[in-house]
Amino acid sequence: MKTRDEMLKKMLEDLEIGYLDPDIYHILQALFRRKESFPASSCSGRITVVDALMPWHRKASTVIFKKHSAVEEGEIYFILRSSPPISRLWLVATGPIFHISALTLREATSILKIAREAGMKHSGILSISKRGIFVELKTGIRVTNLLKSGSFVVEDIHEVVRVVNEALAEGKNRLARFYALLTASQKSA
Amino acid sequence: MKTRDEMLKKMLEDLEIGYLDPDIYHILQALFRRKESFPASSCSGRITVVDALMPWHRKASTVIFKKHSAVEEGEIYFILRSSPPISRLWLVATGPIFHISALTLREATSILKIAREAGMKHSGILSISKRGIFVELKTGIRVTNLLKSGSFVVEDIHEVVRVVNEALAEGKNRLARFYALLTASQKSA
Repeated sequence: MKTRDEMLKKMLEDLEIGYLDPDIYHILQALFRRKESFPASSCSGRITVVDALMPWHRKASTVIFKKHSAVEEGEIYFILRSSPPISRLWLVATGPIFHISALTLREATSILKIAREAGMKHSGILSISKRGIFVELKTGIRVTNLLKSGSFVVEDIHEVVRVVNEALAEGKNRLARFYALLTASQKSA
Repeated sequence: MKTRDEMLKKMLEDLEIGYLDPDIYHILQALFRRKESFPASSCSGRITVVDALMPWHRKASTVIFKKHSAVEEGEIYFILRSSPPISRLWLVATGPIFHISALTLREATSILKIAREAGMKHSGILSISKRGIFVELKTGIRVTNLLKSGSFVVEDIHEVVRVVNEALAEGKNRLARFYALLTASQKSA
């Protein structure tokens, strides 16, 4: 597990290079202001195209497209017309996710309460050890749509693109609620 | 939160009525043998067809088909030919899930360790209160495939049916590993 200083340094480096997702910077800043916890990793929600047998596989899996904002039909058509996948092509939309390292159980449950209220209902404590409490904040937002598999190809991609963009937008709304509740709780603390 | 006796009674009632998923009974028995925890709810993994705007929505959402074993193309064709959905039709495959009520943090982390080893990597503690520690054991296995939405209909369902059946089978394999590790840990304890 990394320390707060290492994670803060990494965030500022990512910001400078332009790697940092602009939808998440203000939230990370608010999280770094907390005394008893800090963010270890995060994603504001994204749309990906994954070449894998199953979308949850990590081995023998390649992310061939990744975007933290709405996709256009042309982008997906371009991928479908490109060279055939090794395995299957999946169009995946996921909601925001945060990993938080907390020093105390009180802080872990406090963060979890804020996340739940913001609609991040799949949040929980992943591990408890001497080095800290590792918390995951997550929504149930997830669409995994088969794009190409064997002889199967989604022909009319208009609707699947619409759906993943809607899913992404729903995730960004929860993120906004999370930020509002987080800063409100810090003002009142 | 329900008590152990209430949950045990409910399981035995479900077993008698024939409601209990046969793939899960032996695992629930093993879990009820533990002294410091008991299962509060469970699912061995399933394939559903859901009529909803988004597959994670609970309001304005209807499960119109549910099966804990492999589906056949004919079953899905039948649904597609039936009356049009209110919203969108999703073909969803999910891996096994357990909710465990633990009396001690030691027991919660011990169960989590077994689940992680069995490949249930999305497991965690959902809440900690005076009444107990609520643990969720879950895999990352999840396919949500759009079947019908507006003018969009999956025409060639052969491949999507194959994929959800594969996903279900992967979940049942993890379930078997979980049972093996669970009983091994109880023999050695």
